Amino acid sequence: MLSDEDLDAVRFAGDAVEYVDQRLLPHTVERRQARTVEELEDAIRTLAVRGAPAIGVFGAYGVALLRSALQDDAAFDAAAARVRNARPTAVNLAWAVDRVRGSADMLAEARAIHDEQRAVDARIGEAALELFPKDATVLTHCNTGPIATAGGGTALGAIVRAHRAGRHLRVFVDETRPLLQGSRLTQFELNKAGVDATLIVDGAAALTMQRCAVDLVIVGADRIARNGDTANKIGTYGVAIAAAHHGIPFYVAAPRSTFDFSIQNGADIPIEERPADEVRGSAAHRDAAVFNPAFDITPGRLIAAFVTEYGLVRPPYADSIPALQDRPNIAALAPNA
Amino acid sequence: MLSDEDLDAVRFAGDAVEYVDQRLLPHTVERRQARTVEELEDAIRTLAVRGAPAIGVFGAYGVALLRSALQDDAAFDAAAARVRNARPTAVNLAWAVDRVRGSADMLAEARAIHDEQRAVDARIGEAALELFPKDATVLTHCNTGPIATAGGGTALGAIVRAHRAGRHLRVFVDETRPLLQGSRLTQFELNKAGVDATLIVDGAAALTMQRCAVDLVIVGADRIARNGDTANKIGTYGVAIAAAHHGIPFYVAAPRSTFDFSIQNGADIPIEERPADEVRGSAAHRDAAVFNPAFDITPGRLIAAFVTEYGLVRPPYADSIPALQDRPNIAALAPNA
Repeated sequence: MLSDEDLDAVRFAGDAVEYVDQRLLPHTVERRQARTVEELEDAIRTLAVRGAPAIGVFGAYGVALLRSALQDDAAFDAAAARVRNARPTAVNLAWAVDRVRGSADMLAEARAIHDEQRAVDARIGEAALELFPKDATVLTHCNTGPIATAGGGTALGAIVRAHRAGRHLRVFVDETRPLLQGSRLTQFELNKAGVDATLIVDGAAALTMQRCAVDLVIVGADRIARNGDTANKIGTYGVAIAAAHHGIPFYVAAPRSTFDFSIQNGADIPIEERPADEVRGSAAHRDAAVFNPAFDITPGRLIAAFVTEYGLVRPPYADSIPALQDRPNIAALAPNA
Repeated sequence: MLSDEDLDAVRFAGDAVEYVDQRLLPHTVERRQARTVEELEDAIRTLAVRGAPAIGVFGAYGVALLRSALQDDAAFDAAAARVRNARPTAVNLAWAVDRVRGSADMLAEARAIHDEQRAVDARIGEAALELFPKDATVLTHCNTGPIATAGGGTALGAIVRAHRAGRHLRVFVDETRPLLQGSRLTQFELNKAGVDATLIVDGAAALTMQRCAVDLVIVGADRIARNGDTANKIGTYGVAIAAAHHGIPFYVAAPRSTFDFSIQNGADIPIEERPADEVRGSAAHRDAAVFNPAFDITPGRLIAAFVTEYGLVRPPYADSIPALQDRPNIAALAPNA
C-alpha cells in the first residue's frame, strides 16, 4: 500500500499529531502538525484530515496529546469533547476518543488503535477478495484508501488487494463533488498502486453501469446502523439506487468501529451540512441558496454485504450486525494478520 | 421571461449571428458575433452557445448567413455540413439546418424557426401547468431556460410559468457537472425570475428526493427516440432512476423538433464524448484517465410524460410519439400563442 512509505496519513510526533493535508493532494504532499485543541479541531473540520478511520486515529492521538498538555481535568474534558464532536456523522471519531479516554495509558491506546486499523484494513482486503471476478469492472465513490484510514484502506484497500492477487480490474472513480475526493485522492492512490482507473463525473455513474458492464460497486462508510442503513459521502445513496436498478451488487467495506450498535436505523444518524461555498465555487452567484449535506443514508436493503475484518456480513442485517458486537477483538489479538 | 429584454441568447445581426457567450454567465453577459463557418462551429463546439433549441436557432441563422457569403455551392454545402455536425447528439441542430437549406428564402426560414421556438416554449409552459400542485417541490437538471432555447425555455420555462400562475414553488437545481450549467445558468435564471431555487451537487439529488418531499422532476432533452428513450445531459438517467425509486414522476419538456422519428430507440442515439480536462479540472492529475460522456439515455419507461407544444404525451410511447409526427405545425399557425 501507499501509506507506509509514501504518505503515512497520520502519525504521532512526540509533541504533535502529524498529518498530510489532504486538501492539497494530489499536487502537493504537505505534512502539518497539530498541537492545540484548535489545531486538532480545525484539521478535522476543514477536512485536512478526512476519512472516518483516519479521523479516528487522528482523534485518538490528539486526545492523548491533550492529556499530557492539559493538567486540569475540566480543561482536558472540554478539549477532548471538542475533538470528539468535530465531525458529527463519522462514528469512528467518537469511538476512538472514548476508547482512549477510558484507558490508563492514553498514548499506548492510541497507538493500539492505529495498529489495529492497519490489521483491520488488511483483513477487509482479504475478506473482499471473493467478491472480485477474475476480470472485474468496479465502480467506487469518494475515497477510502490509505490516506482515509491511516492503514491500507477499506474499499480502496480491497481493490488494491484484488489487483495484487492478480485480478484484472478496471475501476471507475466518481469524482465526488463537492470536494472531489475521487478526483484528488482515489484516482491518485489507484494510479500509484498500478490499478487501471478512470475518472467520471458523479452524474455519469448510471450511464457507466448501463454501458460498461460494471460487475460490482464497493464504497466505504461513516456510520452503519443496526439494520444496515449506512451513512457515507453524499452521492452514495444515488449510486446504490442505480446499482440496484442495474442488478449490480453494492458492497460496503468498513471496520467494526464504523458500526454504531446504539442506533436502530438511518433516521437516527445526524447528517452534517457544510458551507454553501463548497458548492457555489466560482460558478454560482455569491448569493445562490445552497443545500449541502455532506452525507446521505443508503438503506440496508440496497447493500448486498458489508466487508469487515470478521469477513462478509450478509442480510438479514437485523441478525448479522448485532452479532458483530460480541465478537472478540481479532485485530488486537492478531495485529499482523 | 428573461430572454427578450435581458439576454436574447441568439439574434441575427445582419452580417453576423450574435450570441451571449454562455460560458461567462452568470458573472458576465458578453455578446459575441460569429461570421465565418469556423466561428459558428466553434461557438457550438465550445458550448458558448448550448441548449438543443438554441443551437437549432443559432445554426439556422448561421446557415442563412453562410449562404449569402458563399456563392460557390460546393463551398456552401461543405460549410453547412460542418455547422450541422458540430454537436452530434442534439437533433434540433440538424433539423433546423435541413429546414433552412430546403427553403428558398433561408433567412426568412431561420426567422420563422426562431419565432416558432418562442411560440412553442410558451405552449410547453401552458401544457405543463397541470403537473404542478399548488405547493410544489421540484427538481431539475442542467439548463433549459431562455438562454438554452432562444425562447422562453422548456423545462425551466414551465417552472417560471407555474410560478407566474401563482404556484408556490421550491426548486432544487442540480449543479450539473462537469460544466455546471445548473450552477451557472439555471440558478441564475430562476433567481432572476423570482423563483425560490436551491443549488445542490448532483450526488445530493437522491437524498433530496428522500428527505425534501420532491413532487416532480422536470428536465429538457437533446433527442427523443420513437419509444421515448431520451438523450439529455449526463446525469439525467441517474436522476430518473432515483425518481422512480422514490415514486416521483419524471417529466421531459421538449418541442416536437427534439423528437427524432427516424430512430426506434436510445441505442441508436450517438453519445458525444468530450475532453478529459472538463472533468479533471485542477483537481485531478493531468494524466488521469477520464470517461466524459456529455449525454446519457433515459429509457422511456422511466418517463411519466413528455410536455410538448401539443400538450402532454403519455405512454404507451410507441403509439403516442409517432402520432406527433403527423400533427400540423401549430407553432407556425399561431406564433403568438
